[in-house]
Amino acid sequence: MQAVDPLRNTPPSYIREILSVVASNDVISLAGGLPCPDSFPMTIIDTAMRDIACDKSLFQYAATSGYEPLINTIRERYHVTDSQEVLITNGSQQGIDLCTRVFINKGDNIVAEAPSYLGALQIFSIAEANLSTVDQENDGPNIQQLETYFIQGDVSFFYAIPDFHNPTGCCWSLEKRQQVADLCTRYEVLLIEDSPYREMRFSGDSLPTVASLCPEYAISLFSFSKVIAPGLRIGALITPTRYASSFNKLKQATDLHTNVPLQALTHAILNHTDFTTHLAATNQRYQTRYQALVTAITKNPVYEKCTMVPVDGGMFIWLILPDCDVYTVARTAIENGVAVVPSTEFYSNKTEKAAALRINFSYNTPEKIEEGIRRLGDVLEEYIG
Amino acid sequence: MQAVDPLRNTPPSYIREILSVVASNDVISLAGGLPCPDSFPMTIIDTAMRDIACDKSLFQYAATSGYEPLINTIRERYHVTDSQEVLITNGSQQGIDLCTRVFINKGDNIVAEAPSYLGALQIFSIAEANLSTVDQENDGPNIQQLETYFIQGDVSFFYAIPDFHNPTGCCWSLEKRQQVADLCTRYEVLLIEDSPYREMRFSGDSLPTVASLCPEYAISLFSFSKVIAPGLRIGALITPTRYASSFNKLKQATDLHTNVPLQALTHAILNHTDFTTHLAATNQRYQTRYQALVTAITKNPVYEKCTMVPVDGGMFIWLILPDCDVYTVARTAIENGVAVVPSTEFYSNKTEKAAALRINFSYNTPEKIEEGIRRLGDVLEEYIG
Repeated sequence: MQAVDPLRNTPPSYIREILSVVASNDVISLAGGLPCPDSFPMTIIDTAMRDIACDKSLFQYAATSGYEPLINTIRERYHVTDSQEVLITNGSQQGIDLCTRVFINKGDNIVAEAPSYLGALQIFSIAEANLSTVDQENDGPNIQQLETYFIQGDVSFFYAIPDFHNPTGCCWSLEKRQQVADLCTRYEVLLIEDSPYREMRFSGDSLPTVASLCPEYAISLFSFSKVIAPGLRIGALITPTRYASSFNKLKQATDLHTNVPLQALTHAILNHTDFTTHLAATNQRYQTRYQALVTAITKNPVYEKCTMVPVDGGMFIWLILPDCDVYTVARTAIENGVAVVPSTEFYSNKTEKAAALRINFSYNTPEKIEEGIRRLGDVLEEYIG
Repeated sequence: MQAVDPLRNTPPSYIREILSVVASNDVISLAGGLPCPDSFPMTIIDTAMRDIACDKSLFQYAATSGYEPLINTIRERYHVTDSQEVLITNGSQQGIDLCTRVFINKGDNIVAEAPSYLGALQIFSIAEANLSTVDQENDGPNIQQLETYFIQGDVSFFYAIPDFHNPTGCCWSLEKRQQVADLCTRYEVLLIEDSPYREMRFSGDSLPTVASLCPEYAISLFSFSKVIAPGLRIGALITPTRYASSFNKLKQATDLHTNVPLQALTHAILNHTDFTTHLAATNQRYQTRYQALVTAITKNPVYEKCTMVPVDGGMFIWLILPDCDVYTVARTAIENGVAVVPSTEFYSNKTEKAAALRINFSYNTPEKIEEGIRRLGDVLEEYIG
């Protein structure tokens, strides 16, 4: 017996490989997408866990859709309408997987931005979907390319990350949001709006979700990995009511329901009086780190040959390099004590890509970021200097 | 956009429907498969949760395969060999789903016992597998039927529950275990051995797992839902090493990893000095309830027309009725204040089935069980009296 083709043929994740190298060496990792552990709300967690540990009802089998108080909190927090339903998921990663399993048969068409989130590309590949991509511009996806696909028909869904995109950090303009919503409505194509970074804004004004502009044609994925802690694996999926029973049947078959104690913990944290202050402090911490990154890049002349689009939040910047072999640059950087992710990893077709590096600023201290950028600069000197 | 066919066409689970009726009425539910909440180790949980709430490292992203101390505990507890790997899952339900996704393309052949676990049948149906079944005898599956399927070739795996089967409570004899292991080895067919109830034995001697008799051709699924608490959604999958990378890639794509704090909690509970005593007390509690059930059935003459195979553990008995419409019996029973599950629900082909009822004895007190059996007796009087 052999595993199915897409699993046997998928290479292991570059990021996972790197992370294992990094853990065992004196390498500064600007590669992963890890939040800073000092931003985990441990004081609130400590208090809430004591209540949870006394409540037997949280340890029994429970409803597939999720813990009702948490669902109600999410309905309020994300303005869920009466024609939408909430499903609690194991992080937004499971949300992407459930969407793919609900809508995609082998060979069905998905459209995504290029570059896009590696974890989503893996799921689409395992599902043997036919993936088409639209270019990402500074203010969002190329609308003409998107409409061309929609006109051709048979697009099952458009997967996108409009807020602080992974890997580019891009945040769609209001105009692009409205245009995409209009296209989805006109061509009746579903949008899967993945929003794990949306609440990690440290400057500028929040824009409406695209889903709020076309609620009948959108499924929203939220995550509490960044605003609370990723180890909890708690996220939420918001769907038009007509798909709720399919999602529930699939979630039930998949793992019955998400664990209850950490749903209760998430509920307690989101409703804690200190949570808003905590979230603001976390975002301020990330802003400080982002600024350290920008300063380090600005003061090093080798980076003048690169392009860095400023961001207002999230975890990453996208450093566009002059034409070069980014994979080799990234490999050499590790030897020189700093890990970053080469752009190749974020394209389904690894041959057509911009030369760029994804650089994380949430995990390390400003000092380490500065040192990492210095080490990376030495490597860039060699390849593009 | 529509959901894929198998999700649109799968009816909602009868058990889920019943449970929602039961929750809102004065109905004694002998239908579900819930452990008794008084058996949750709340004292150990309370202490362990305090340590967990202080350890930031348990709230970060983590390894896909699972929390290493828990993996090591499982390796010892279940005698995992050097040519096997452990993957922590969201309950054994996710284990079944992962096995199906790793090995099954649409139309591939699965063999299972008939009757079998409803949650597995749902997954096989969503995967559009071609399911064949072998009859279940008092000491395990019909070996001739099984070999006939294996001879025909192209069986992707044989899914089975050898210990305290759901729904029948059957425990395979040592002879049947050896025969199945021999067949799997000879025909190189994988066994998926689902063992959520294995440690719930209250009488008789434990027999070796079938996987231990053919480790190269077996994947084992364990669950901590029954021995600790189901709300945690923690289980484990043990695979021959050759499949480990496929399982890891799929688990990563599915939800990155199982939540860490409750893996740490499971680890703490399994290693607590009081856990063995706790487990023995839980099994004794279930034995008392089982005996109350047997007594109630024995003293009511209407049950003389039924057959009940005694069990040595687990959560269920299988009450075989004279030929009748069990679905109507079960419906009428609810109106008469007691819920049980009709045998029809446990067959993929709902027309070929024995007339039987699955009756749970883990959830209710002996007094409630007695009253439930009395109410059910009144209904049986009407249909088979």
